[in-house]
Amino acid sequence: MRAIVLSIGDELLCGDCVDTNSSWLCGRFAERGVQVCEVLQIPDDRERIAHAFRSASGRCEVIVSTGGLGPTPDDLTSAALADAVGDELVRDETAVGWIRDRLVSRGHGMIDSQATMGDRPTSAVLLRNANGTAPIVHRADEICRVWCLPGPPVEMRPAFEQYIAPELPPGRSLASQEVRCCGIIEADAAALLGELIDRDRTLPVGTRVSRGSFIATVHEEGPESDALLADVAARLAPWAYGGNDEGPQHDVARMLLAANQTLATAESCTGGWIGASIVDVPGSSRWYRGGVVSYSNELKHRWLDVPMTRFEAEGPGAVSGEVARDMAVGIRATTGSDWGVSVTGVAGPDGGTERKPVGTVWIGISSDTADVARQFRFPGDRTAVRRRAVAYAMQCLRFAMLETSAPLALEVGS
Amino acid sequence: MRAIVLSIGDELLCGDCVDTNSSWLCGRFAERGVQVCEVLQIPDDRERIAHAFRSASGRCEVIVSTGGLGPTPDDLTSAALADAVGDELVRDETAVGWIRDRLVSRGHGMIDSQATMGDRPTSAVLLRNANGTAPIVHRADEICRVWCLPGPPVEMRPAFEQYIAPELPPGRSLASQEVRCCGIIEADAAALLGELIDRDRTLPVGTRVSRGSFIATVHEEGPESDALLADVAARLAPWAYGGNDEGPQHDVARMLLAANQTLATAESCTGGWIGASIVDVPGSSRWYRGGVVSYSNELKHRWLDVPMTRFEAEGPGAVSGEVARDMAVGIRATTGSDWGVSVTGVAGPDGGTERKPVGTVWIGISSDTADVARQFRFPGDRTAVRRRAVAYAMQCLRFAMLETSAPLALEVGS
Repeated sequence: MRAIVLSIGDELLCGDCVDTNSSWLCGRFAERGVQVCEVLQIPDDRERIAHAFRSASGRCEVIVSTGGLGPTPDDLTSAALADAVGDELVRDETAVGWIRDRLVSRGHGMIDSQATMGDRPTSAVLLRNANGTAPIVHRADEICRVWCLPGPPVEMRPAFEQYIAPELPPGRSLASQEVRCCGIIEADAAALLGELIDRDRTLPVGTRVSRGSFIATVHEEGPESDALLADVAARLAPWAYGGNDEGPQHDVARMLLAANQTLATAESCTGGWIGASIVDVPGSSRWYRGGVVSYSNELKHRWLDVPMTRFEAEGPGAVSGEVARDMAVGIRATTGSDWGVSVTGVAGPDGGTERKPVGTVWIGISSDTADVARQFRFPGDRTAVRRRAVAYAMQCLRFAMLETSAPLALEVGS
Repeated sequence: MRAIVLSIGDELLCGDCVDTNSSWLCGRFAERGVQVCEVLQIPDDRERIAHAFRSASGRCEVIVSTGGLGPTPDDLTSAALADAVGDELVRDETAVGWIRDRLVSRGHGMIDSQATMGDRPTSAVLLRNANGTAPIVHRADEICRVWCLPGPPVEMRPAFEQYIAPELPPGRSLASQEVRCCGIIEADAAALLGELIDRDRTLPVGTRVSRGSFIATVHEEGPESDALLADVAARLAPWAYGGNDEGPQHDVARMLLAANQTLATAESCTGGWIGASIVDVPGSSRWYRGGVVSYSNELKHRWLDVPMTRFEAEGPGAVSGEVARDMAVGIRATTGSDWGVSVTGVAGPDGGTERKPVGTVWIGISSDTADVARQFRFPGDRTAVRRRAVAYAMQCLRFAMLETSAPLALEVGS
């Protein structure tokens, strides 16, 4: 079974708003074994919407639209569906009753424009919206079933679960399981995966790069998929840190809990982002002691015992391996943690020099066996450099805990 | 001028990934007066991609695709474009040189699969990717110009600015300007805006709620729009903290710079997120001293001088107004800053009690005139509670700097 998702609204095409409805719907369809073959975002234009319905109906068995069901003049979904199937619009008095009831129950009267939400194509039916005023429009013929859902996620999601999910056949899930990697370039990861990523295999492995992570996906579930997923993870070790929705900090959490060890952080250019990503893991208070954002040299000295001579003209400067190491050692000592992680770098847009261009980041790791610092050069703007520094700091820590000397992409000689 | 955006990748249609590229591109096009008439998300399917290129070329003057330019077998954009225009694929040795150079400069060799990124349709040209390995594919004929950009935003965005933006005509912007608010509920904000949000006005004001912020938008530019925007901002004062893409920390930055003052932070449940959001503002080192993530009681005592008696059985506990105030006072004292901000709370999913349920957050503010603490109850999951705490901490600081006693939504009596 195939589906097409239509997201309707001028705001989607002006960049005001990211269309999260369509990715949510894609996820729900995948879980139920329905292949979404296309997502289309179009403006509040009656002719354009009608054309989209007509064009989609020949290519799939289920069409779901979101948006354009409200009372304002730019809400045109129902009228456009009528055009697409050659219907008239008729007012559905039962639905007008639902609309009036809901408004009255909230202390309002119903005005004329609100009654238009009770209009439907003659061959369609209206379904009550449990979480809003605009009814859902539904129409089915021998080729295709259409549901028009409201745009607000708080109304759209329950309407999907109530009306669409029960109508989908029990299908084998197409939801994907991921293996996520940090610190390996796409081509090297692809080479490690080898024949697994050939397009003509029965169980293909998909790959993509997102925010600096390489992600391999297996799109089916079952014993074969699980074995394949394990193979993928093994081939991508030690860069692979976890699965769906995880960051390297989730694997760090597992390792620290298993070893009954603790961690503390000392951040400069990341400004607390590493700590925030750690605290995002529920239960992190069992292994995370805390940290400092030592944004000034004085605080690096005071809180972390970094010698002030590091910052003098002849010294290595705040962005250096020495200071990264000092910071990691300092935070470990002052908090009594088993591991200390530090970051100092030039996130930009200003502050870069020829020797230390924007994107230069040092990561320090301190433990009872060694104190090390590694230098990286991260691409992109201030946010991209900082995001990469957060993920790499956790990945450097993982590698230290794993005692691996595997290389990390974007590392530069010190 | 009209544009169509094609987002290519299986991951987009499985719900694995929200397509942020297309909304970013829509925003950039709108700024330059180009109407995006359609965004289409399609899978890594050569025939489907070719069909999308063919179908789009009759309906617009600019096509931009993202994704599918990498070295793996599911990267099919270039081949599909060749199919669409009836070209063969040829290897571009100049581009292969760029690819090799980039890999070598990072200490790698080039393998065969990577050379395929130098393939292009015969009638297209390749453009160097300043931030990645895969070249951009560009083709123009009398009807339509096509650019195929890489999927990673860190490569896609600069490539748009470098190659596409200069080719767009100087058009009247279609972009919208925003007024963003924190700490006011939608119905109250709508009441303050009154007749400005009537849909039949020539210049309508749009409203929406996103991640706890109330956002009012004005969709045109010019003297009338500027006056309207100023009116909107005035009606929403003091809750309105800024415009497009800003958080309350951006207004805090402006106010601290104007007053030549400094700030430091002490965080518990937010784990460094406040610091990270502050450091996200370029130039923050001029007014942000740094801070601590005092996740354990011991560190709250050691770093911030919070009396250990606070944590005893008869004491108020770590999540209390006393401790929030102590933390703000402590971080201001130890860093010598003009302002100290602190957060301590129960982010969940565990740790809630009847008196202090999940979502209970205390925010402390310390300055040379007063030390205060305010209690809030934030809805949602761990991430939602923490996100709200970050925004509200900055909003509480703004209100203290503005010396306003305006109420904040979700505040509870202490």
